[in-house]
Amino acid sequence: MDGGEIFLWELLGTTLLLLLGCGVVANHVLRKTNGHAAGTLFINIGWAFAVFTGASVAHPTGAHLNPAVTLGLWVSDKMDGGDVPWYLLGQICGGILGAILCWATYKLQFDDHPEPEGTLGIFSTIPQIPNKLWNTVTEVIGTFVLVGWILFSPGYSEANGTPAFGNAALGYAGVAFVVLVIGTSLGGPTGYAINPVRDLGPRIAYAFILPIKGKGDAQWNYAWVPVVGPLIGGLLAGLLYNIWPEV
Amino acid sequence: MDGGEIFLWELLGTTLLLLLGCGVVANHVLRKTNGHAAGTLFINIGWAFAVFTGASVAHPTGAHLNPAVTLGLWVSDKMDGGDVPWYLLGQICGGILGAILCWATYKLQFDDHPEPEGTLGIFSTIPQIPNKLWNTVTEVIGTFVLVGWILFSPGYSEANGTPAFGNAALGYAGVAFVVLVIGTSLGGPTGYAINPVRDLGPRIAYAFILPIKGKGDAQWNYAWVPVVGPLIGGLLAGLLYNIWPEV
Amino acid sequence: MDGGEIFLWELLGTTLLLLLGCGVVANHVLRKTNGHAAGTLFINIGWAFAVFTGASVAHPTGAHLNPAVTLGLWVSDKMDGGDVPWYLLGQICGGILGAILCWATYKLQFDDHPEPEGTLGIFSTIPQIPNKLWNTVTEVIGTFVLVGWILFSPGYSEANGTPAFGNAALGYAGVAFVVLVIGTSLGGPTGYAINPVRDLGPRIAYAFILPIKGKGDAQWNYAWVPVVGPLIGGLLAGLLYNIWPEV
Amino acid sequence: MDGGEIFLWELLGTTLLLLLGCGVVANHVLRKTNGHAAGTLFINIGWAFAVFTGASVAHPTGAHLNPAVTLGLWVSDKMDGGDVPWYLLGQICGGILGAILCWATYKLQFDDHPEPEGTLGIFSTIPQIPNKLWNTVTEVIGTFVLVGWILFSPGYSEANGTPAFGNAALGYAGVAFVVLVIGTSLGGPTGYAINPVRDLGPRIAYAFILPIKGKGDAQWNYAWVPVVGPLIGGLLAGLLYNIWPEV
Repeated sequence: MDGGEIFLWELLGTTLLLLLGCGVVANHVLRKTNGHAAGTLFINIGWAFAVFTGASVAHPTGAHLNPAVTLGLWVSDKMDGGDVPWYLLGQICGGILGAILCWATYKLQFDDHPEPEGTLGIFSTIPQIPNKLWNTVTEVIGTFVLVGWILFSPGYSEANGTPAFGNAALGYAGVAFVVLVIGTSLGGPTGYAINPVRDLGPRIAYAFILPIKGKGDAQWNYAWVPVVGPLIGGLLAGLLYNIWPEV
Repeated sequence: MDGGEIFLWELLGTTLLLLLGCGVVANHVLRKTNGHAAGTLFINIGWAFAVFTGASVAHPTGAHLNPAVTLGLWVSDKMDGGDVPWYLLGQICGGILGAILCWATYKLQFDDHPEPEGTLGIFSTIPQIPNKLWNTVTEVIGTFVLVGWILFSPGYSEANGTPAFGNAALGYAGVAFVVLVIGTSLGGPTGYAINPVRDLGPRIAYAFILPIKGKGDAQWNYAWVPVVGPLIGGLLAGLLYNIWPEV
Repeated sequence: MDGGEIFLWELLGTTLLLLLGCGVVANHVLRKTNGHAAGTLFINIGWAFAVFTGASVAHPTGAHLNPAVTLGLWVSDKMDGGDVPWYLLGQICGGILGAILCWATYKLQFDDHPEPEGTLGIFSTIPQIPNKLWNTVTEVIGTFVLVGWILFSPGYSEANGTPAFGNAALGYAGVAFVVLVIGTSLGGPTGYAINPVRDLGPRIAYAFILPIKGKGDAQWNYAWVPVVGPLIGGLLAGLLYNIWPEV
Repeated sequence: MDGGEIFLWELLGTTLLLLLGCGVVANHVLRKTNGHAAGTLFINIGWAFAVFTGASVAHPTGAHLNPAVTLGLWVSDKMDGGDVPWYLLGQICGGILGAILCWATYKLQFDDHPEPEGTLGIFSTIPQIPNKLWNTVTEVIGTFVLVGWILFSPGYSEANGTPAFGNAALGYAGVAFVVLVIGTSLGGPTGYAINPVRDLGPRIAYAFILPIKGKGDAQWNYAWVPVVGPLIGGLLAGLLYNIWPEV
């Protein structure tokens, strides 16, 4: 598969991931929606099957959709390092495009929202108790579980030099279940970015592109935590996999 | 498979889809039910597995159950255009029949309901903020995700000139997960018709057939949005699939 | 497989079904439990995966666990009629035994419950609006969906003259999803017995065996509805299957 | 597989199980989390997919993660008794390590919690109505369902002298569904330890390792119940399997 094709599939999958992921938070946060205040489990389920949808579509590239996954696979020698830039480019563009489509879906609700400055949380993560060190620790642990599961669980196959969770769409239910439990169990403190582009792409869209009236601050001072934390978590999972005894 | 058989299987599957889909909203809306006010996630889960049930039964025809799916497959050259009328006929008849069976299931509750004019929402979608342009955009995006997933995800096979999501009932869990996340994430503004007959069939039943006392207006002025929006979404997904590079 | 073995497997599966099914209602109804007032979706999910657990264990007999399923398969010529009595005997004994184990699990909570006369609903179904004709209609429709799905969906195989939903435990996830949506969508009026022994077995245990202080009436005047309705539903599904054109 | 490798895989899987399992309770109990007071179903779903995640990773050893499972397989002659100590060692160390990682994930929330003496329930089970005899009965029944399902359901295979639920990660969805329904249906009275190390490992971490300010009593007088009850349940399941007629 050439670089342009990697870009396209990662773009498509990450766009779906962010459209659906930001969408469930929009449904919960905004007024005059069917899902207003529908709760944490509702949000966790939405994100889990957002991953299912995006990942099963992006099957041809191994469905990374996440630089932390790409990094974990790279350090484990599971992919060609020359493909990394194409993966990252598709992922970040998909993160931005998904956020824009989420805004278009809820355009009327954004216009109606009485406190537009509270809308950042639809797009990017915000810690419940700000503390850069411990927020990073939380993101490292969550991402370690995600990337570790991808590396260590069976059914992991390789096609065209790229990994795949399974050989059919339903195989991606596994990664959705893992994202579901990361959300319910490790998402409490920081909102489980566990993916740099999941946080950064929509933050860029929020700050520079979306025409939301009375937009709040994009909180750039926190923005590096959900980038660096997941990258460390993916790196640690890859390193552990490297030193783990083979079965 | 001849046209009459296509009609029968699509009729059976769409009847189950609408019986179970309208049923979960009835359970939530009507008084004196076990599911009264059970919430948005409850409704989303009901619709998701309504799709699972109807789709797995209608496996022999590829389980369209939805003119937007039929259109997306038609423009992608995945089916014989001569079969399209039989698909549509089965779907619309199933949409009406399913709504009638839902009414029969909840007959005592409909008789007891103190505000019968509020019952349209059990059968058809109603936008939270009416605006024909942006409501259509929301339906286009939601249906694009559904039909796009069917076209782009792996495991998609073809039998007898018609597509199938998998070769066993459980394979249809994938499309149920996608409908679940469309509901949680994109269903906030318009109630995610994402299927012309899902909305039109029950609306016809409500307006012309069901003996609900004090029925409200069937809101025909809005009725074209959940028909046209999904058709555009299915068309766009099919067109994108056509220009997408082959793996 | 001889009759005694059929009895044993159906007994084991139905015992698990009723232990777990009655258990989730006990958790919701009784005070001083972790699941007190946990809601309708909680109950629906409990019953769905109670079916998964019991059915996957009873795989060798085709996992009927339900006289309405047995009847539907019998009229469809899918099983040997001479085995029917062994199926029914295992099912009804399992229904009683499961209810007893549920009581033992929640023994301290039953002793503590301030309104013991309200405990019938843990074991047997009670209609929200009593009306024998329409309550029966609701049970017929719900059971028609269950048995119809078993007969019409793909993946249905036959081994030793008995049907099986799949060839591994996970295949029974499909029937669990169908029971989940029957609960959310058709369970509102009558509590979806959709299985004669699911209602009758625990009612016998409640009325004659369990030492619950201040037990209420077992409502025997209603008890035929969740027996007859499901049998009619299973019969209609079997008859429709017989006249349906083969694929 | 040598003993050290069994230790490593069971350690990894049990660490994930307890990190995610304790995590969902922490999210529900602690203040200033996204999942505060998110409810019983939320907790049950978290634990179910915690089992999925840990079990699918520990596939090479048969994914016991639980001394009651190890005991049930041992008495059923499904494993080499000489491996038992390595299983147990990995499990108990994983139980402690998972609890420590849970604490690190929620470190800021633990520091902020106004009633630190109420934090034991995040780590270990506490009965709703204390009564050692009947609490043990509840744990015996719950564990019997878990270990019985593992022994009796199809799809159970043996590799390298150790059992496996399936041959790919998704196969472990079955055991997750069983744990989900044990939680909803049998978890009401005692919080469903159904696993000695799930309770004992985190209790050791809570009592002796974690720096939680104002820690409460570790309730050692109850601690034997969630150890002994599950072991009896696993033993009974193994004994029943031994005397059950072969298919």
